[in-house]
Amino acid sequence: MAEKSVAEDLANKHKSISIAEFFEKNRHLLGFDSKIKAMLTCVKEAVDNSLDACEENAAELKKRKKDFELPDILVRVDLIQGEVYKIIVEDNGPGIASEIIPKVFAKLLYGSKFGRLKQGRGQQGIGISAAVMYGQITTGKPARIISKISKDKPAQLVELFIDIKNNDAKVLKNEEYVKFSKNTGTRVEITLEGLYRGSGDKSIFEYLRRTSISNPHAKITFIDPEGKVTIFKRATESLPAETKEIKPHPWGIELGVLTRMIENTKKNSMQSFLTEELSKVSALNAKQILEKAKIDPKRRPDTIKADEAVELIKQLQKADLQRPPTDCLSPVGRGAIEKSLKLVYHPEYIVATTRPPNVYRGYPFQVEAALAYGGDIPEGSAQILRVANKVPLLYESGACAITIASSEMDWKRYGIPKASGSQLPTAPIIIFVHICSVWVPFTSESKAAVANYPIIIKEIKLALQECARQLGVFIKRKIKIKRDAQRINTFIKYSEVLSTALAELTRKEEKEVKKIVDEVLEKRYGDIIKKRQELAKEEAKLPTKKVEAEKEKESDEE
Amino acid sequence: MAEKSVAEDLANKHKSISIAEFFEKNRHLLGFDSKIKAMLTCVKEAVDNSLDACEENAAELKKRKKDFELPDILVRVDLIQGEVYKIIVEDNGPGIASEIIPKVFAKLLYGSKFGRLKQGRGQQGIGISAAVMYGQITTGKPARIISKISKDKPAQLVELFIDIKNNDAKVLKNEEYVKFSKNTGTRVEITLEGLYRGSGDKSIFEYLRRTSISNPHAKITFIDPEGKVTIFKRATESLPAETKEIKPHPWGIELGVLTRMIENTKKNSMQSFLTEELSKVSALNAKQILEKAKIDPKRRPDTIKADEAVELIKQLQKADLQRPPTDCLSPVGRGAIEKSLKLVYHPEYIVATTRPPNVYRGYPFQVEAALAYGGDIPEGSAQILRVANKVPLLYESGACAITIASSEMDWKRYGIPKASGSQLPTAPIIIFVHICSVWVPFTSESKAAVANYPIIIKEIKLALQECARQLGVFIKRKIKIKRDAQRINTFIKYSEVLSTALAELTRKEEKEVKKIVDEVLEKRYGDIIKKRQELAKEEAKLPTKKVEAEKEKESDEE
Repeated sequence: MAEKSVAEDLANKHKSISIAEFFEKNRHLLGFDSKIKAMLTCVKEAVDNSLDACEENAAELKKRKKDFELPDILVRVDLIQGEVYKIIVEDNGPGIASEIIPKVFAKLLYGSKFGRLKQGRGQQGIGISAAVMYGQITTGKPARIISKISKDKPAQLVELFIDIKNNDAKVLKNEEYVKFSKNTGTRVEITLEGLYRGSGDKSIFEYLRRTSISNPHAKITFIDPEGKVTIFKRATESLPAETKEIKPHPWGIELGVLTRMIENTKKNSMQSFLTEELSKVSALNAKQILEKAKIDPKRRPDTIKADEAVELIKQLQKADLQRPPTDCLSPVGRGAIEKSLKLVYHPEYIVATTRPPNVYRGYPFQVEAALAYGGDIPEGSAQILRVANKVPLLYESGACAITIASSEMDWKRYGIPKASGSQLPTAPIIIFVHICSVWVPFTSESKAAVANYPIIIKEIKLALQECARQLGVFIKRKIKIKRDAQRINTFIKYSEVLSTALAELTRKEEKEVKKIVDEVLEKRYGDIIKKRQELAKEEAKLPTKKVEAEKEKESDEE
Repeated sequence: MAEKSVAEDLANKHKSISIAEFFEKNRHLLGFDSKIKAMLTCVKEAVDNSLDACEENAAELKKRKKDFELPDILVRVDLIQGEVYKIIVEDNGPGIASEIIPKVFAKLLYGSKFGRLKQGRGQQGIGISAAVMYGQITTGKPARIISKISKDKPAQLVELFIDIKNNDAKVLKNEEYVKFSKNTGTRVEITLEGLYRGSGDKSIFEYLRRTSISNPHAKITFIDPEGKVTIFKRATESLPAETKEIKPHPWGIELGVLTRMIENTKKNSMQSFLTEELSKVSALNAKQILEKAKIDPKRRPDTIKADEAVELIKQLQKADLQRPPTDCLSPVGRGAIEKSLKLVYHPEYIVATTRPPNVYRGYPFQVEAALAYGGDIPEGSAQILRVANKVPLLYESGACAITIASSEMDWKRYGIPKASGSQLPTAPIIIFVHICSVWVPFTSESKAAVANYPIIIKEIKLALQECARQLGVFIKRKIKIKRDAQRINTFIKYSEVLSTALAELTRKEEKEVKKIVDEVLEKRYGDIIKKRQELAKEEAKLPTKKVEAEKEKESDEE
């Protein structure tokens, strides 16, 4: 037999890798690169899923005209020993049907949200399985899932590993569990190697605090490794508006997706395919687009060739259409953001805004911003709270569109103090920015930073400018009040010194002289002295820490 | 029938996503986020594969005591129309066996290099399939692969798409092709939407130039869209030392990998498993490790339980062992780097160094650095050439360990000019840093930046410090020569002015006075004038642009 060629030899070394193997080795891409970050990422993935599930549940029950509960989430971190912790996240969501529990928790790239054009926290179907995998490869312990889907059925307990070679679940235990106290809900327990930090910008505590700010309708209870309980209360009792799934908009569609849609459609003409499976394409639009692409509107989709699809997509991308619908988006709302921030920081002044929706690459998105000043906010440089689809972002700040837009703002123009050399205001200010979209363009799978699309940067700046204008007026007024008060103090001090000097010169009683001087001052500066009294009253009227009264009030934001 | 619970309703919405679908939507993670970058990424993936294949081929043929060729790579970019280009990369490697061509080019996470502990350019089995996918979703055109694996067999032509839903190939054409001129090799043609830039830091031209610097044994021919041909010549005719695959070292092994190795081993005792399937574990080491982990050395691997594996890995990770072997690494070599940089920049001075190997997370790695000064290097701030496993890195500079280490260097300490406010030297300097490893820790799948492991930063700094010390001496000497020359010029100028003045005062002939003054100066400053002549000679001796003579010389670096 002839000697094998080198190529034939090399061919035997080729093999498929499972996505689980890939991310096991590249787990830093998913946010599991350090022990501190791994713990936070695990909590984040579980809480994101819980909030999504609770909201979907409430929306569905509302639709069925049944009672529903607002999200009530428990996060507990137990120290097992050394650097081994158990993270427990329990919600009052709908529970998870037992037949899909293994895949939801132990198969990467499995989920209900990928490609769905609707705002949600999860979008990839990777996160929670990655957390299970991390726990397993660092401690050898399986994940434990308890889920109850109906108050009439017992809960189910599943213990599982990921079979990493095959990216599928290895179920160790699957049995009834009677001790689950809620009507419906899910409890996830993951044992992992980690490092716990009780405070700081990147701590679990701070993450939950910010989650609470961005989700004012959720109650979050946190029990730390020392058993200390913190309850982040709801700032509102109303459910955010339900989001609707939209169809792809022609501006954002890509050839690959369009081709697959054409292959799979059940419509029998291109005309009806365009009007019924894409968003905002009227019959007239479809006719014009197809004409320009030289495709007969009556053609059956399965007869469209590759080069015809290329021509069609060109016409779709530049078609003159209405913008995509925006009921797929769910902003937090101006009022709710203000209440949340007041609850946490008791600021002297606060302003928030929700911009109208805009579009990037055919995906609708919306920006909200708030500026809070004074109160419990620490002095020094302003702090940015970055939020995407109601999930706070703690890592990779420098790479994020929100940080970049905030740093590029001309804060001084609005009368907001900024030290030279600093990019953010030098004042006790919280800069809150929320971007929501059916598909947030993150810079990596760990979803820590928003990519720098110019249109997104622009919207963030417009939102911040609106807030900055108002905060600027407040700060200028505050500075003016202070300056006026100082000036009047100088006058009064001056009148006393003058009286003493005059009394000595004229050898008269000081009281007598003072009276004359006061009369002169009254004549000349009477309006200012009056103003002083007015200002004192006005100062008392400025918003102070007494905002707590509002915090328990309910109101419907939508 | 009872109403379905919300959980049961939601269960139906869950589905698996293929890795191809995931990266189709998240293609920015793979370097396909802008039209300019997409073209570069496509060239890069194809050239990386070609160089890897050529080197494996040469090493194997050498082993078989047969003739082999050094890498000879053609890169051609054709403008098809508008923003559609065809990228062609052809090599003289071993070719690819026709049965695996579809998977190599149209299945993500398929390859021969994942998990292999040996230095290579590719490591994931994603890149080239992602380029094929990008071409397909932007132009609807299939990729075209021509491969010849033996001079006695005709080449094979394959045209293919990726079936994105299933992450597998859809072959359109698979036939013999007689027009391929090389004995063996591969030609890849991908048609894609892009934007071509002829020059600049992130251009294909610059990428190929830097590839040539880091791969002095490769000849690269580039034909740009206007038909202009550039040949990047070889700086050396010798093949880099062949790298060997190593076994995992206990310091770097993770529980998941260890567990799978224990499950799959054919060894029948833990003692022989440890000594034969891990690197640098002697019989005595194995005995001590197993004793500490309370595992009988005679135990069969298939009887090891999860908690025993956890204990075993703890002992492995802290075992007192020899460092991992380093014949898995292939640095460029000090001499070859110098030659390459001379060929391109004709510097006045150049210094390079190759550090001894070190270890991060159990993976061996090695750093090389060079500093080139003057010649064709532009004035202004120094420029960094970042290279990982012989692949130049052009994007995400700020996030890269190489940039961070270079910026943290105390350049002034070595007498290298640096303007205040600048982090890099302010001089015509090229900073070249190459890190090679069996597993380079990149910050993302697009492999654009090296992660900031402290041990890696430290090695880079040590390499740069070695170079900086020598360059500093050169620059100081250059400055001193300049300063001395200026001083002597002043003296000479002074002597003439003095003579004129004295001649006027004494009413004598200026020549006569000058002679006397010169005698006095000779007496006092004779040594300096002599030195001036010496310095003139010395200046002529400094390395100049005349380094071309060396460039065609062959030499064996290893």
